[in-house]
Amino acid sequence: MLLRDSRLGEISRDVLDYISSRTADHRIFSADLLVDRAHLVMLREQNLISLQVFESIIQAIDRIQESELGDGEDVHEAIEAQVLSLVGPEGGRMHTGRSRNDEVATCIRIALREEMLALMNELLSLFETCITLAESHTETLIPGFTHTQHAQPTTLAHHLLAHADAFLRDFSRLEDAYSRVNLSPLGAAAFASTGFAIDRETTCRLLGFDGLVENSMDAVSSRDFLLEVLSDLAILMTGLSRLAEELILWSTQEFGYLELDSLYASTSSIMPQKKNPDTAELARAKAGSVVGALVSALAICKALPMSYNRDLQEVTPHLWRGLDWTRSTVRILDGCLLSAKFNVDALEASAGAGFSTATELADSLVRITGMPFRTAHRIVGKIAAAGSHPTMQELDSVSWEIAEIRPSEKGFTFGDLETALDPRSNVNRRAAVGGPAAAETTRMLAARRVRLAGARQSLEIKRSCVEKAQEELLNYHKK
Amino acid sequence: MLLRDSRLGEISRDVLDYISSRTADHRIFSADLLVDRAHLVMLREQNLISLQVFESIIQAIDRIQESELGDGEDVHEAIEAQVLSLVGPEGGRMHTGRSRNDEVATCIRIALREEMLALMNELLSLFETCITLAESHTETLIPGFTHTQHAQPTTLAHHLLAHADAFLRDFSRLEDAYSRVNLSPLGAAAFASTGFAIDRETTCRLLGFDGLVENSMDAVSSRDFLLEVLSDLAILMTGLSRLAEELILWSTQEFGYLELDSLYASTSSIMPQKKNPDTAELARAKAGSVVGALVSALAICKALPMSYNRDLQEVTPHLWRGLDWTRSTVRILDGCLLSAKFNVDALEASAGAGFSTATELADSLVRITGMPFRTAHRIVGKIAAAGSHPTMQELDSVSWEIAEIRPSEKGFTFGDLETALDPRSNVNRRAAVGGPAAAETTRMLAARRVRLAGARQSLEIKRSCVEKAQEELLNYHKK
Amino acid sequence: MLLRDSRLGEISRDVLDYISSRTADHRIFSADLLVDRAHLVMLREQNLISLQVFESIIQAIDRIQESELGDGEDVHEAIEAQVLSLVGPEGGRMHTGRSRNDEVATCIRIALREEMLALMNELLSLFETCITLAESHTETLIPGFTHTQHAQPTTLAHHLLAHADAFLRDFSRLEDAYSRVNLSPLGAAAFASTGFAIDRETTCRLLGFDGLVENSMDAVSSRDFLLEVLSDLAILMTGLSRLAEELILWSTQEFGYLELDSLYASTSSIMPQKKNPDTAELARAKAGSVVGALVSALAICKALPMSYNRDLQEVTPHLWRGLDWTRSTVRILDGCLLSAKFNVDALEASAGAGFSTATELADSLVRITGMPFRTAHRIVGKIAAAGSHPTMQELDSVSWEIAEIRPSEKGFTFGDLETALDPRSNVNRRAAVGGPAAAETTRMLAARRVRLAGARQSLEIKRSCVEKAQEELLNYHKK
Amino acid sequence: MLLRDSRLGEISRDVLDYISSRTADHRIFSADLLVDRAHLVMLREQNLISLQVFESIIQAIDRIQESELGDGEDVHEAIEAQVLSLVGPEGGRMHTGRSRNDEVATCIRIALREEMLALMNELLSLFETCITLAESHTETLIPGFTHTQHAQPTTLAHHLLAHADAFLRDFSRLEDAYSRVNLSPLGAAAFASTGFAIDRETTCRLLGFDGLVENSMDAVSSRDFLLEVLSDLAILMTGLSRLAEELILWSTQEFGYLELDSLYASTSSIMPQKKNPDTAELARAKAGSVVGALVSALAICKALPMSYNRDLQEVTPHLWRGLDWTRSTVRILDGCLLSAKFNVDALEASAGAGFSTATELADSLVRITGMPFRTAHRIVGKIAAAGSHPTMQELDSVSWEIAEIRPSEKGFTFGDLETALDPRSNVNRRAAVGGPAAAETTRMLAARRVRLAGARQSLEIKRSCVEKAQEELLNYHKK
Repeated sequence: MLLRDSRLGEISRDVLDYISSRTADHRIFSADLLVDRAHLVMLREQNLISLQVFESIIQAIDRIQESELGDGEDVHEAIEAQVLSLVGPEGGRMHTGRSRNDEVATCIRIALREEMLALMNELLSLFETCITLAESHTETLIPGFTHTQHAQPTTLAHHLLAHADAFLRDFSRLEDAYSRVNLSPLGAAAFASTGFAIDRETTCRLLGFDGLVENSMDAVSSRDFLLEVLSDLAILMTGLSRLAEELILWSTQEFGYLELDSLYASTSSIMPQKKNPDTAELARAKAGSVVGALVSALAICKALPMSYNRDLQEVTPHLWRGLDWTRSTVRILDGCLLSAKFNVDALEASAGAGFSTATELADSLVRITGMPFRTAHRIVGKIAAAGSHPTMQELDSVSWEIAEIRPSEKGFTFGDLETALDPRSNVNRRAAVGGPAAAETTRMLAARRVRLAGARQSLEIKRSCVEKAQEELLNYHKK
Repeated sequence: MLLRDSRLGEISRDVLDYISSRTADHRIFSADLLVDRAHLVMLREQNLISLQVFESIIQAIDRIQESELGDGEDVHEAIEAQVLSLVGPEGGRMHTGRSRNDEVATCIRIALREEMLALMNELLSLFETCITLAESHTETLIPGFTHTQHAQPTTLAHHLLAHADAFLRDFSRLEDAYSRVNLSPLGAAAFASTGFAIDRETTCRLLGFDGLVENSMDAVSSRDFLLEVLSDLAILMTGLSRLAEELILWSTQEFGYLELDSLYASTSSIMPQKKNPDTAELARAKAGSVVGALVSALAICKALPMSYNRDLQEVTPHLWRGLDWTRSTVRILDGCLLSAKFNVDALEASAGAGFSTATELADSLVRITGMPFRTAHRIVGKIAAAGSHPTMQELDSVSWEIAEIRPSEKGFTFGDLETALDPRSNVNRRAAVGGPAAAETTRMLAARRVRLAGARQSLEIKRSCVEKAQEELLNYHKK
Repeated sequence: MLLRDSRLGEISRDVLDYISSRTADHRIFSADLLVDRAHLVMLREQNLISLQVFESIIQAIDRIQESELGDGEDVHEAIEAQVLSLVGPEGGRMHTGRSRNDEVATCIRIALREEMLALMNELLSLFETCITLAESHTETLIPGFTHTQHAQPTTLAHHLLAHADAFLRDFSRLEDAYSRVNLSPLGAAAFASTGFAIDRETTCRLLGFDGLVENSMDAVSSRDFLLEVLSDLAILMTGLSRLAEELILWSTQEFGYLELDSLYASTSSIMPQKKNPDTAELARAKAGSVVGALVSALAICKALPMSYNRDLQEVTPHLWRGLDWTRSTVRILDGCLLSAKFNVDALEASAGAGFSTATELADSLVRITGMPFRTAHRIVGKIAAAGSHPTMQELDSVSWEIAEIRPSEKGFTFGDLETALDPRSNVNRRAAVGGPAAAETTRMLAARRVRLAGARQSLEIKRSCVEKAQEELLNYHKK
Repeated sequence: MLLRDSRLGEISRDVLDYISSRTADHRIFSADLLVDRAHLVMLREQNLISLQVFESIIQAIDRIQESELGDGEDVHEAIEAQVLSLVGPEGGRMHTGRSRNDEVATCIRIALREEMLALMNELLSLFETCITLAESHTETLIPGFTHTQHAQPTTLAHHLLAHADAFLRDFSRLEDAYSRVNLSPLGAAAFASTGFAIDRETTCRLLGFDGLVENSMDAVSSRDFLLEVLSDLAILMTGLSRLAEELILWSTQEFGYLELDSLYASTSSIMPQKKNPDTAELARAKAGSVVGALVSALAICKALPMSYNRDLQEVTPHLWRGLDWTRSTVRILDGCLLSAKFNVDALEASAGAGFSTATELADSLVRITGMPFRTAHRIVGKIAAAGSHPTMQELDSVSWEIAEIRPSEKGFTFGDLETALDPRSNVNRRAAVGGPAAAETTRMLAARRVRLAGARQSLEIKRSCVEKAQEELLNYHKK
């Protein structure tokens, strides 16, 4: 008999653990108290609760805010239980015209926007690190790669700017998503709205939301805002993993273009000269983790009928994990990049190796002698196959052999040859918009500084809207 | 000897098939010809090619446009080969200051924006279908579900609007993505820009792009625009799969709320009364296919170093497949929904079944008698457990038992009881913003019509920008 | 100055958290101590450490086993630090001929096989629940579905057996995976083996492994065993999600075929008659979570060069999460199914509804009258379209109209008609191997009981091998 | 009016395209004809059709086999239509006791096992390439990597064997899956078996299956066999992508360890000295494609209720794509590896660079002088930090400084120092099971040759079983 009960108890606990969202709920504890406050203020302003009840519940909320979370299947239940124990049955009026369904949707959005604002700030810091580094390296020649093979020389600044511009697009994606996240579902109740004369605009304003998720069924059952953020994180992490891969590659003995700071690398006691790029490897790996988080969330949401289903509870932890992984990776790569030492000598030495100026030589032949492209390509190809930078005589002789032309007779001088073969001249000639020429890079960098300032301002506006609303809400009853 | 050669030939063909992008390239054939034209016009305007060469290549392009695609590892090579065969060696000047890397990135963006414009248009049609249907059903009562269980009554219009509003967010996500897609990478060349005096702004304008992907390394190596669109498709498909699931569920004999039109259902010759919701099942399934396409693209792009890598060739077909699956699903579900017959009688009969008005009864007791929530809940809970709609006497007697209150003595009349238990009164009382009351739904529908008009206008502007540019480009040499 | 240090301290902690595997390492703490023991015994037997050192380290291990885990970047470091503090510098000899790389791979496999054995046991319990229920329902008629539409009648036993057989395949997949999991990488050291005269066979045997992962580079860098287990979990969860979906569907008011036990459902205080199938919804959702875990692991492992990379540290937590989600879901659905009440009356009433016997009627016409299939189909189709079970006259008249045949004149009696239209007769006629006829189902059930016994025995052998080895290892120094 | 019809026609075609499986069905065309034959033979043997009907249908099948596939929503319908047109109404008897549901499941399994046998064969070829190459390189020193950093010297043979052993596990996984694939669902009919006296064992045997998927509902609705194969492909591709990554890495100018054969690399006309590792890049990318195919299939199958649902039609194309991508990648990497030129000089020169023998030096100090590990590590660490291979004097002086020991006085000779610092000695000392010492590698290679022979034999048995059955089936009516 007792055994059976104890067995049943074990099963019950197993089931309770399975159903409970408590582990994830610490992420929305503060948000939940804000939602409670806003709802109470609205109820009071709509005269749906008395001043006395309002004040006693608010006092209870104040006390709970300073304490730990109690027991309960979820955070809402735990808070409600504490309010009831502090206020008595009248505490239950806090839930007038509200349901756990709209409450949890609101809490997730509040906690999420906090995370997004923090992430966007961290992302701008990484962006700034890229352009700050680039500003010091507008003239640092490096080999430019396609297929991980040397292709043409470029500069470190040009390379870093490619990453930076991608990060700026990630920022703009997050901003776009923010406009769909920072909306209030509160007042949707279970999904069918409520018969109480609530005022959704008021709670929306008090909580610093930019607008409503209007339709009450949509409000409690949609998680596309969450899927969008996870997508943006996965795309951002894909970009970060590309940077991480380069940090790993450039740190190899073979490349030797980069040395990570000891803080971001690990050594073995026995091989102190070896530096394992652990942080970059983990950054690369976490890109995979975030893709999985996105897949989990998409697969869970697929084919759920309206409106709220318990499946949705399983989605949220994937969002928090995705955010943790992404935010820490942004911070780590920021520090990693900022503190890395670029081996400028090795980079510049490699920049001109391997006849990576072949393209420019052919282009020069076309430009100066007017010979057709294909001819120039065949001439340079033949020279390249021989493996060395050509002399003027060799150029003339190969050209004659192939096309019965002598470049030297068509105005192509020794100086032109030198210029075409020089990596720095190569780079400086590439001054079209977006190219690696120092002047063009400098122009882009200045433009990026302006964009950075703009992005920071736009972020600051978002943050101050939210903070101002929260401050007013917290001080409401002190007025 | 011959055997060996034939074996080698087989291997070579195997390798060629593996490397070739020809199967996917038919998607960018027209785009490629546009890119060729724009590039040629710019070369001419920059005086980088002679008028004669310009005209002869343009004529060749005109002829190719009317023909089939020839041989070659990829579409660019095939077009180039035809140009060379039509124009002779001078045809090679078309590639002055250009590379396959920037060319293919440009082509993908052009083909993609076409698909996006078409998809956005189809999505607005589905949105319109939802609101058109909703307009006819603002007073049609249906059971509202949570956990696929009857929870509270609502209306069909309210339900359809929940889907519609989600689709509108999908539209706005696509619009945001469009602003990052419709940018020109052309002029980035292999990744390091070019030494020729090209003018990227000109090709940008000629091709109807809204701006540049500036940094030339970023321009050829970034595919985040593509990942973003695939994410948007996956999120949209998740929403569509929810609608599909409901079409399937509501078509079951057990639910019986809906009959699909024969065009969208299949029957067996032997059981003509049975209608299998095949289109909705496939729509549900294709949501899974699109998630997989997104995962493929993300996994491929992960950890690729700068700049162009051949891996990127493998990404694009996932985009086209994702678009095909999504666009056809939008169209199919649009037709499916528009032609479906809702069984209004069965829906309304179910709307009040199962004491789904219990919440409203408790709310009414609180509102009218002022009793605490918890008390009202316990009273209604006890009545609900007994299973039937209560009489006034039962209400009084249960209330007395639980709380020594008789609602009838606190101003709660028989009329109040009737109202509380009536599904239609329930719904009409829920008139807060976003609620199912007919007046509120009507207001929302009117607002949605305005938004639809706005969205269509915004879409039209995008389309006409692109079309105008293309028309001018096609007629350039006829000036 | 101090600010900078404190800032640096913060960054350092951030980096340390990023690099640390401590959160996941509690999963391999016990395994790690076993590995230490086995390695020490082997070192002693190979005479690579003295008896005295051996005994003092073993005593330290004994003490650590009873304590909490101390500090350190990972569990191996923490244990080593404690050994050193208890034993002194000689404690370091524990690491003779070993590296963290082979150690962690060994620990994961030990912890994983424990989880697999437990999961396989739980899975067999679920399998037994299915067949036990089926044994009570070999004659319980239910509607059989295709496309979620009634198609033909079958039995509850037949339906449950379909799930059970799938679970048995999941079991066999896990058994196959176990043979690739339960192999010892120990002795591979960092990846290049070691110059010490270690004996890998000894540690293999002491740890209860079935063999070696031989090549030392493969041993530390392969995680395919882990990917395989995660795949098996994802496939199992897919099967479980199908059962979960049916529990949800059959629990709807509309279907009404099933009532979950209150332990596995949640009610609201206000709607006690409503039972939300929360456990089944979460089970369905967790299938999505496990797919994501698999994707994370695959994406992380993609394109890693040999041999150990820090990325691998990020893989393991996905395995543990996948196992937790799967094991709890198996247990929950087992309890959920076992305690559910099937509404046999509703099921049997539905079994014959909707002319689901149409197929059998056509088959009977073919069998008895010899008329061609297509003719029989057209006749029954016409009758079905009319919507009701036909009389003999109707059958004759429709048959005449279509094919100038009167079944009654071809030996088709009223009894044949009755039989063809009776769901129970339908089912009983379907006695081919695998069919729903009671006799055949009973035969299958008996065969499943035999397979269950066999599977349990095979599982028991695995478990006892492992346990025996561990017991011997723990008692080694007491000999 | 006409416009409306034409519009409707367009919609109808859109719907038909959406529903049709014709594009994927060419994969199962031959399988379908085999299934038809086996079913017909069984019907004849069970006396369910007359000899005359049997012969005329078989003749029709013979003719269809030589022709193209006609029209129809799917392949089954197309074949049936042709049979009917060739045989007349009696042709319909082919479908006695059968449904499209069991037919398609059977066809997929037949086509899949063909693909699996071919893949397993190709995989063994790749395995053989690895060991053949390894046999030539048991003494070729290479740097061994962890974290893509030089760690300790090893051999090329040891490295290649690590890949080979992983491929062998992939083979064994496919073999295990094959045992669950090669089972017959035929005879399950729509899902509820059939009332005709069919004999499932006969069709099973005629089609070369190893057994039945017994339960008829399980038989038509389960796709776990397909998910398992896709999982195995994803795991295999993950392993292949690791090899591909190394081919890319080792082909860089910086590593310079490898040169791909021109057949597997692409060059530009202008930079003929540059070889882009396109095939390896595409192989790496296709690993991502296969992961996505698996995700699609899992997401589609999730939460489908029993039994057949149209969603299943959307699963199969992902299987075929996954197989195509995997098989071609195995073949390409096989050829790529076999034809690659290893730059043995560069590998051997790098093997000893970077003091990668530090670990062995410390181990030697412990072994010979008996000094504690930690002490030896500190000594070697200090030497390594200084950056060069130490002389005996330096070793003594650093040792004295750290631990007041002089190794030379503890029996550590100059010869010991030389040996410890020599990469080849390092490798040869690592002769434990699985280590890189030439003798041990040679032993492993011999064992792998034996396993290869065994695997080929086992594969041959599978293939001949299938072929023999098919041959008999094709000749059945000629008897």
